[in-house]
Amino acid sequence: MPSRFELANAIRALSMDAVQKANSGHPGAPMGMADIAEVLWNDYLVHNPADPHWPDRDRFVLSNGHGSMLLYSLLHLTGYELSLEELQNFRQLHSKTAGHPEFGYAPGIETTTGPLGQGLANAVGMALAERTLAAQFNRPGHTIVDHHTYCFVGDGCLMEGISHEVGSLAGTQQLGKLITFYDDNGISIDGEVEGWFTDDTAKRFEAYGWHVVPNVDGHQPEEVKAAIELAHQQEDRPSLIICKTIIGFGAPNKQGKEECHGAALGEDEVAAARRQLDWPHAPFHVPEDIYQGWDAAETGQARQDAWQERFARYAEAFPELAREFQRRIKGDLPTSITSEAMVEAAQARGDSVASRKASLACLDELGPQMPELLGGSADLAPSNLTFWKGAQAITPDEPGGNYLHYGVREFGMGAIMNGIVLHGGFVPYGATFLIFMEYMRNSVRMASLMGKQVIYVFTHDSIGLGEDGPTHQPIEQLTTLRSTPNLATWRPCDSVETSVAWDAAIKRRSGPTALVFSRQGLPHQARSNQQLADIQRGGYVLKNGKGTPELILIATGSEVGLAMDAAARLEEQGRSVRVVSMPSTDLFDRQDAEYREQVLPSAVTARLAVEAGHPDVWYKYVGLNGAIIGMTTFGESAPAGDLFKHFGFTVDNVVAEATALMD
Amino acid sequence: MPSRFELANAIRALSMDAVQKANSGHPGAPMGMADIAEVLWNDYLVHNPADPHWPDRDRFVLSNGHGSMLLYSLLHLTGYELSLEELQNFRQLHSKTAGHPEFGYAPGIETTTGPLGQGLANAVGMALAERTLAAQFNRPGHTIVDHHTYCFVGDGCLMEGISHEVGSLAGTQQLGKLITFYDDNGISIDGEVEGWFTDDTAKRFEAYGWHVVPNVDGHQPEEVKAAIELAHQQEDRPSLIICKTIIGFGAPNKQGKEECHGAALGEDEVAAARRQLDWPHAPFHVPEDIYQGWDAAETGQARQDAWQERFARYAEAFPELAREFQRRIKGDLPTSITSEAMVEAAQARGDSVASRKASLACLDELGPQMPELLGGSADLAPSNLTFWKGAQAITPDEPGGNYLHYGVREFGMGAIMNGIVLHGGFVPYGATFLIFMEYMRNSVRMASLMGKQVIYVFTHDSIGLGEDGPTHQPIEQLTTLRSTPNLATWRPCDSVETSVAWDAAIKRRSGPTALVFSRQGLPHQARSNQQLADIQRGGYVLKNGKGTPELILIATGSEVGLAMDAAARLEEQGRSVRVVSMPSTDLFDRQDAEYREQVLPSAVTARLAVEAGHPDVWYKYVGLNGAIIGMTTFGESAPAGDLFKHFGFTVDNVVAEATALMD
Repeated sequence: MPSRFELANAIRALSMDAVQKANSGHPGAPMGMADIAEVLWNDYLVHNPADPHWPDRDRFVLSNGHGSMLLYSLLHLTGYELSLEELQNFRQLHSKTAGHPEFGYAPGIETTTGPLGQGLANAVGMALAERTLAAQFNRPGHTIVDHHTYCFVGDGCLMEGISHEVGSLAGTQQLGKLITFYDDNGISIDGEVEGWFTDDTAKRFEAYGWHVVPNVDGHQPEEVKAAIELAHQQEDRPSLIICKTIIGFGAPNKQGKEECHGAALGEDEVAAARRQLDWPHAPFHVPEDIYQGWDAAETGQARQDAWQERFARYAEAFPELAREFQRRIKGDLPTSITSEAMVEAAQARGDSVASRKASLACLDELGPQMPELLGGSADLAPSNLTFWKGAQAITPDEPGGNYLHYGVREFGMGAIMNGIVLHGGFVPYGATFLIFMEYMRNSVRMASLMGKQVIYVFTHDSIGLGEDGPTHQPIEQLTTLRSTPNLATWRPCDSVETSVAWDAAIKRRSGPTALVFSRQGLPHQARSNQQLADIQRGGYVLKNGKGTPELILIATGSEVGLAMDAAARLEEQGRSVRVVSMPSTDLFDRQDAEYREQVLPSAVTARLAVEAGHPDVWYKYVGLNGAIIGMTTFGESAPAGDLFKHFGFTVDNVVAEATALMD
Repeated sequence: MPSRFELANAIRALSMDAVQKANSGHPGAPMGMADIAEVLWNDYLVHNPADPHWPDRDRFVLSNGHGSMLLYSLLHLTGYELSLEELQNFRQLHSKTAGHPEFGYAPGIETTTGPLGQGLANAVGMALAERTLAAQFNRPGHTIVDHHTYCFVGDGCLMEGISHEVGSLAGTQQLGKLITFYDDNGISIDGEVEGWFTDDTAKRFEAYGWHVVPNVDGHQPEEVKAAIELAHQQEDRPSLIICKTIIGFGAPNKQGKEECHGAALGEDEVAAARRQLDWPHAPFHVPEDIYQGWDAAETGQARQDAWQERFARYAEAFPELAREFQRRIKGDLPTSITSEAMVEAAQARGDSVASRKASLACLDELGPQMPELLGGSADLAPSNLTFWKGAQAITPDEPGGNYLHYGVREFGMGAIMNGIVLHGGFVPYGATFLIFMEYMRNSVRMASLMGKQVIYVFTHDSIGLGEDGPTHQPIEQLTTLRSTPNLATWRPCDSVETSVAWDAAIKRRSGPTALVFSRQGLPHQARSNQQLADIQRGGYVLKNGKGTPELILIATGSEVGLAMDAAARLEEQGRSVRVVSMPSTDLFDRQDAEYREQVLPSAVTARLAVEAGHPDVWYKYVGLNGAIIGMTTFGESAPAGDLFKHFGFTVDNVVAEATALMD
């Protein structure tokens, strides 16, 4: 039987070989954390390489994602479907072994990491999801949800602000099954961190209410093991195990230095490391006994089998709950969901309310039907209107709720939601003002990149928020959302479009949806059944002129009512004007050419877009002969009505611009 | 002489009256922090209401900017040019008293705050600037820079991640003259914070190396005074004074509750508060003796006079230094700056290098001439190439340097740079990968909103960064930058355009500039003198076809070389093709119509834009009849060459698309 050191060296060798072959990558972190990973994966991690989706597996997150070869080595060695050839294709096009771990590329990658700090936040989300799911489904004598979340973090993760947000919330939430290993190697890209990072990290996490095991030698397996044992005893405190390590451990001339962090070691140093580590094997060659020492197939299958038996007994005792659990894990909507009826009811009701308020009505409708909805707001619940009538806060004492008070932690919220959805069993939605999307921006991008269903409720969507002023008034934020690949964005004009947007958001499983809502009231629009159905196409003719229209007005959200009023005035003046409501440009863009031509006929080149946001995105629809009424400057602090007038969002101005285009 | 309590009540009364009149705003924080502010402003703050720009004044930052009426009250009461009428116009269009404090609106507002946590970061930047400027200019016996930075923060600021980033860095940098007051009122918008914020904040800041004064009763002036005295004794530790306060202090039915945080108290409660506080005066009426108790005109002028005398002696002893100090504070460029010669030299040299490398050459040229350049990178100096040959790290031991190792703290860096430039005496530049602009995004927006000169060096600008993969490859980020009001954005195609971009950035004082650079090498482009001059117009004809061109290729950055190659191929095929290089779309948009028509003649509708970023912004230039080769999906992990090929950035593809447009 190989020693622990030899087992760990397999990670080191594969990592340095793969980076060397690609001549690109980060050997330092995998070589430094190999011993910790060996103890965790061989002695503790509950997983089954044959079924990476087993719902009760432990979760493992490599927050310092640049050390991706550590994860790829572990997956390969323990028996996941990740071949040696894939490791040899590290960082090459179409390989499963991308530069940073990409969710969905290789089995066993629980989340995409690389942007520092977010992996830790994902792990917090996973641990929250585990505890919530356990509280909702476990029954006395029947424990079907019971696993740990393990996370590796580096200095960079801990310098990032998001580590504060989620460390703090994890402490408050008393997530005892979250165990984090800090790779305290004292090195970051600029060099030795003592010039820019002198925190007493143990003390900091104690201040959050964490259990901290300081001063663990990360190259002494028994010390690591003892720390994990301590961590496992914690019921109501997350653990931080601070492991002193040597970056690039084993590379005799480069270890402990920044040089081995982010570049191939070089042939000579790789050879020297082989000697230093007493690893005489050829590049990418792992001896059979080492493979055997790592193989997790048998124990993994046995563990999952035992769980399946437990689950079978559970299903016998609680057949409905078991079916519900399976539905939740699979991510199917309840078959009886009435979200479409909700749309029709909204049209029939004809409310003229703020879309944030219409959104709350949707939540009141959907919430009771979808226990998987796990809501929250970054301390703006009374403004975002996300705390629906059946919402119940998740707390350490009441862990089975469906709503998280995230506190003033937008970025943490976004990345925690990613962790929750990755864990499975939930559809998370989270809210803040649209402007503070910027604080959480990269987590929105990560959900889009991973293609996971997260729903953002972004309220106070324009200068229409009024007095809070330019710091709070979105201008360019819609543009950012719309140009994010795989993100669906909606800016509804009334209660009806709001319902359609929510309906689309709960049905869209392949990626996140941003719901952009107004603070102020919006007038209800009349619609035929066809128009009602066409909302789902992202853009549709809300009002048609007589014959071929002379001009098309395109608007979204609060500007649709304005466009309708302007069109009415223009009609009084004998003009034939069409109004297109386009709540979701990305969805409209995906319609077939025929439909798009129907809505925006090429023959009509006099087109005026009206939106209280940055105008440039609209050239795509109005072309060089059209015009746009938008916001090219920041807003101002004043009552909303004054602002719309000040910035030209008036019937007079729309009519004047439209007339100029037609004449 | 009125009591301290009476003086503080003037703040409370003005705040609740102004919010009541506007029927909008946040009375709770001003009423809760009034006693602290009274002690600080009346007993300690060194300022001169008659000259809000006096360089050696203390800085005061209200990080919890929603409490803006606190600041407006203080400015009004102590004698700044902010009339009672302005307070009565709180939150109205064109008033100086916007919903949140807006830099430049009223004298004495040191920074725009509202987006939580950033004010604290600004304060850290101001304190860093003060120490650096002091080290650079003070001489034995001649202290001309010596002031404190005071900052108020709320629970929200301390929950935000940025508070960690900048708290940590301030501790490492040992900024003893930074004194922060934490308004520990236990309330945030969702209610009592104990459900989502249970940090031991004292312990947390001690972990950063701060001096903490816990458990101060924020309504007991003597306790506040004692804490400030302790803080003033600290030389190498920033201070956090944790003040227990009652939000909305004085409103008998609403104090201590979320109700008084973000809405007018209501007429009845305002009246009740008047009784409770024993403040019998009419709304907006402040008795003369209260005004006298607050008046800082005389002491302020005396203090500034004393400083002027010190400065006069300094100028006598060190005339050159004094002139340099005045230039730096004024923000003028050195008269002898050779940035234009740098451009010409670059054209003559004709290097084909990565634009990040060309940028380093610019810094090597500009750095020695501009000691006001205060650089830095969020732990990516060796990749961003911002540590030029004369760069010297700023440390507690060597505070007079010109470069900050910000650590992995992008958002902190951005908001600290805002603080540095607001302090005066510096032109900050800071670097990270373009993708991580997202982590610091709202600080970029704040610099744009405030109209301050901050220079961002964003490298690794596209899929051209290669193997690090989709998490690191910008797609939509250029779009975000370009649609930010008042932000100048450059994506140069070679060393020459890089020099022009730097030249423009150092000359642009009215707002920030984002310099977007490649990781990979870029070919040098030949240019006539006219073309060289036209780079400054943001877009120009780099290559002309014979006669009227059949097609215009528009490109930026790394795609300009590709466009030139494709144009050459098309010319071989007998086509007349124009290539427009457009390194700065915002600058091009500001050229007169004649010039724009010259570059992009309306008659030529066959237009193809090529940029390895999100395509939609380019419809503005190619219209509905043009086409765009861009990125509509996320990238992949692979060598850069493979990626450009994979995503269609090849001569073949450009030629094919161009041909399709022409035929």
